[in-house]
Amino acid sequence: MIRLKFDIELGYEIAGSTSDFIFNIHAAQTAHQSVANEQLYLSQPVTPVIYTDLTYGTRYMRLQTAPGPLTVRYEATVDIAHYFESPENLAEVPISQLPSEVLPYIYPSRYCQSDRLGKLATWEFAHFQPGYPRVQAIQDWVRRRTSFLSGSSNSNTSATDTLIEQAGICRDFAHLMIALCRAMNIPARFVTGIDYGADPKLGPTDFHAFVEVFLSKRWYSFDPSGISPPMGLVRLGTGRDAADASFATVFGSVKSIAPVINIAAIDDPANGYTLPRHCTDVLSSTEPIHTQ
Amino acid sequence: MIRLKFDIELGYEIAGSTSDFIFNIHAAQTAHQSVANEQLYLSQPVTPVIYTDLTYGTRYMRLQTAPGPLTVRYEATVDIAHYFESPENLAEVPISQLPSEVLPYIYPSRYCQSDRLGKLATWEFAHFQPGYPRVQAIQDWVRRRTSFLSGSSNSNTSATDTLIEQAGICRDFAHLMIALCRAMNIPARFVTGIDYGADPKLGPTDFHAFVEVFLSKRWYSFDPSGISPPMGLVRLGTGRDAADASFATVFGSVKSIAPVINIAAIDDPANGYTLPRHCTDVLSSTEPIHTQ
Amino acid sequence: MIRLKFDIELGYEIAGSTSDFIFNIHAAQTAHQSVANEQLYLSQPVTPVIYTDLTYGTRYMRLQTAPGPLTVRYEATVDIAHYFESPENLAEVPISQLPSEVLPYIYPSRYCQSDRLGKLATWEFAHFQPGYPRVQAIQDWVRRRTSFLSGSSNSNTSATDTLIEQAGICRDFAHLMIALCRAMNIPARFVTGIDYGADPKLGPTDFHAFVEVFLSKRWYSFDPSGISPPMGLVRLGTGRDAADASFATVFGSVKSIAPVINIAAIDDPANGYTLPRHCTDVLSSTEPIHTQ
Amino acid sequence: MIRLKFDIELGYEIAGSTSDFIFNIHAAQTAHQSVANEQLYLSQPVTPVIYTDLTYGTRYMRLQTAPGPLTVRYEATVDIAHYFESPENLAEVPISQLPSEVLPYIYPSRYCQSDRLGKLATWEFAHFQPGYPRVQAIQDWVRRRTSFLSGSSNSNTSATDTLIEQAGICRDFAHLMIALCRAMNIPARFVTGIDYGADPKLGPTDFHAFVEVFLSKRWYSFDPSGISPPMGLVRLGTGRDAADASFATVFGSVKSIAPVINIAAIDDPANGYTLPRHCTDVLSSTEPIHTQ
Repeated sequence: MIRLKFDIELGYEIAGSTSDFIFNIHAAQTAHQSVANEQLYLSQPVTPVIYTDLTYGTRYMRLQTAPGPLTVRYEATVDIAHYFESPENLAEVPISQLPSEVLPYIYPSRYCQSDRLGKLATWEFAHFQPGYPRVQAIQDWVRRRTSFLSGSSNSNTSATDTLIEQAGICRDFAHLMIALCRAMNIPARFVTGIDYGADPKLGPTDFHAFVEVFLSKRWYSFDPSGISPPMGLVRLGTGRDAADASFATVFGSVKSIAPVINIAAIDDPANGYTLPRHCTDVLSSTEPIHTQ
Repeated sequence: MIRLKFDIELGYEIAGSTSDFIFNIHAAQTAHQSVANEQLYLSQPVTPVIYTDLTYGTRYMRLQTAPGPLTVRYEATVDIAHYFESPENLAEVPISQLPSEVLPYIYPSRYCQSDRLGKLATWEFAHFQPGYPRVQAIQDWVRRRTSFLSGSSNSNTSATDTLIEQAGICRDFAHLMIALCRAMNIPARFVTGIDYGADPKLGPTDFHAFVEVFLSKRWYSFDPSGISPPMGLVRLGTGRDAADASFATVFGSVKSIAPVINIAAIDDPANGYTLPRHCTDVLSSTEPIHTQ
Repeated sequence: MIRLKFDIELGYEIAGSTSDFIFNIHAAQTAHQSVANEQLYLSQPVTPVIYTDLTYGTRYMRLQTAPGPLTVRYEATVDIAHYFESPENLAEVPISQLPSEVLPYIYPSRYCQSDRLGKLATWEFAHFQPGYPRVQAIQDWVRRRTSFLSGSSNSNTSATDTLIEQAGICRDFAHLMIALCRAMNIPARFVTGIDYGADPKLGPTDFHAFVEVFLSKRWYSFDPSGISPPMGLVRLGTGRDAADASFATVFGSVKSIAPVINIAAIDDPANGYTLPRHCTDVLSSTEPIHTQ
Repeated sequence: MIRLKFDIELGYEIAGSTSDFIFNIHAAQTAHQSVANEQLYLSQPVTPVIYTDLTYGTRYMRLQTAPGPLTVRYEATVDIAHYFESPENLAEVPISQLPSEVLPYIYPSRYCQSDRLGKLATWEFAHFQPGYPRVQAIQDWVRRRTSFLSGSSNSNTSATDTLIEQAGICRDFAHLMIALCRAMNIPARFVTGIDYGADPKLGPTDFHAFVEVFLSKRWYSFDPSGISPPMGLVRLGTGRDAADASFATVFGSVKSIAPVINIAAIDDPANGYTLPRHCTDVLSSTEPIHTQ
């Protein structure tokens, strides 16, 4: 079991009259990720409306705020029980047997134009062994070719841009890997989270983005940016791509301050909590879904 | 009540070994659209797997086919009971009160990059009266500026392309209207269907694409291409954009023949069936959804 | 006569072995713009190769530099004798009569995809009176719709992006105006320069980009960003768009510091030097070209 | 010496009042390509204005036509004296020594966004031996990855699209090769022509597009589409990309018919005319340009 403790502080200055926010900063509550405790602080006397998506455990918080400054602070202690699987047991699922709820993740989306990448994906990846080896090859290809470079991308940057320019940040790595998987008819989706264990040279802890790929019966975690061991990832939001799973969507005239985030892992083997580490097994933090 | 009878014939030539298809050619079954009778014919001895999405009533049919020719024929008689509303009763719903299930439709998607259009939409539409007048203004703007021109767009064409090039077919009109609505924080989505009542000068009956916009408590139908009276639209699929609601997604090496489609409306007032016509009310064919 | 005195300081840190630079920071020498005096300082003991393009008077300086820091300082005093014309005398030239050397400026270029904008330009501008009123309408349209916003664009941003996103800096305003003129078959080109008279609220003096449009027999200056009176513009480079007329093109692994630029205008009416001002005439700083 | 005899027939239907055309269908007249005889036929009694670009030998013909049908027929017999060079003698020219007139061909252009491809080109081609081996590697890479597929591209398709979608026609192959060369700081440009010796399976003879790369002192011909031996290429237009060198640019409301083109090679060794053939030497049909 992994226990991670983190806090997020977001700051805004609201210029107009009122503004609407949709936050997705609460830790998701799933069969594999439970919240031991959590606390939310809002600097304005507003009542948040929290909606939980039952499929993904995602919690969306909507606020309507007054003009002036807004600080949002969230802290949580989260327990994650991963499911471990040997790579050799992970197979691609034929289109005809994919669970219906998985189907949306083979289609293209805002930032993952898999419809344009069929020939390229076939050229690069058709000769790999189907299943985990192919997905691993896609992840390696993206990681090898793409430079991690702050400021090289913006909110309009999509998988095809990253393919061409070979630079980006974690969300761009994720979009490109997702687009290439879908172009090979392998369902793939986008997860936002907080990561434990990143190289401090990459700068202060920030929101992270990673990938889930559907193999055999589950969604398995991959971090194409290579920043963190998949064992150290906390799930916040899940979606087709960053359009679905932004940590904050802001409606109105608002200036924002860079988020401040801290995360720590509990090293308490006596109580069953071990530190996240790299391992050869593939990790899932989702329940099995039965194929057709 | 509207009764429409239509048939669809699709033809393919499968080159490779086997191929997978996901069709969305069955009439949706909803509280407002019921199927009086229907018939499916497949030229290959394959068993279709049909999955019904309970939220939208969409029916997806998956086939795994052998090499050689494939003909798919579907015919149905469908009854549609519209909900009529006066334009002046239709209001925009504030972000903070949008039903959770409607939220995905304010985000950008593959073909509707609303995230890039905030300034333009504000420039063009902020001064209109919120609610139906604004949505109507968006529809008129798209219709007025865009030429209906077969062959001017392809499967990669998105709302921003149509905005720039001012030409397209029904799906392009729909994508642009959806993107502009979302850029104004008005939820909008994409519906594929068959339409009764198109101008025969536009060529033979084909699949159609139109728009639903969420106002007050329901999704209301708009046809920005202006091809058909909304009363003559049969719903097949519903999604964020054409990526979600294609009538056929083909996996494998397959040649396709242009679809052949016929549709007729039953004019039998004695039994309550009247012909689709243009009217001043706004039409919905969905159930109300309670706002937060 | 306008006399402007300016200096430019550029700083680089060259990481690799050697690096190549192509600068275009010398004031152009044309029949209408002469250099009273100028001085160049290079912090490395390298010999610049300066090439003068006889058509445009553009001076390109190539350097091959050693690793380490590089400072380039250029200062010049420049006299500009504008040609003034009343707007009502400026006509569009039919394609069949355009001078051959002007033809390249009706074709699309890297940042000005006029080939995609034919319908939109016709929609917006076909009803204006041809000649100066139409060009003025294009300039006003671009200026009115586009927000001047530092950081809203990057080196990949093109006219179609600016059209969609309605924000940019001077180069983006110029690209959009050029693309729309060409889409109406009006030759238009890109000029880089230094401008006198910008609103200090826009920040420190920087390189500027403006537009020349071919009407009647000459190229006339327009500044769609509205930052400066056209009378206060010094010409450095001239080209189809920013791809041709960058103040510095760097080959190699180099970090650059933001340019530091100063400009002053000489107010010495006794000697014939007056300050740049807004005026109702249209200005050219090029010689007439005879039409076919 | 190669002697090629070809004819081109173009058909238009002019709808509006008058229309303007700029044709580039005359064989270029250069030191290496001379016109033994030629004939032009126009179905309307209009006087063409022919302008010869002295740098490239390109001949542009402008017509202003009346409404109704227009047929343009051009036929010519052209003699081409190639310059042959061994691949091992062809070196890349350092930026600092490039002739000034060659400089425009290292910058990005409408269809060749080399500015976006620096990392990718370095990744793929930096490890090849500079000079001919690197250019050959770029050509092979483009040819190997890209499928020749009629209808897969349109007039908006650029090098980055072809890179992503891996399909196109000759002009798309040329744009991608040009963009990748420029991204490696190797000057490259676009030539339109007629080609002798194409595989008849590719359909009837059509206009062709190929690439010239500047190495050592000359522009050398490459055909990344692999359709024809470079020895069988007639030069019509030369430019940065297809935006500069279209065989016909049409201004007005005009419908066009597919061009009909025939070409034959004279096999008359007694008089010094041999058939085009593949050979191991690299071919140029331009004069040497002295480097700085």
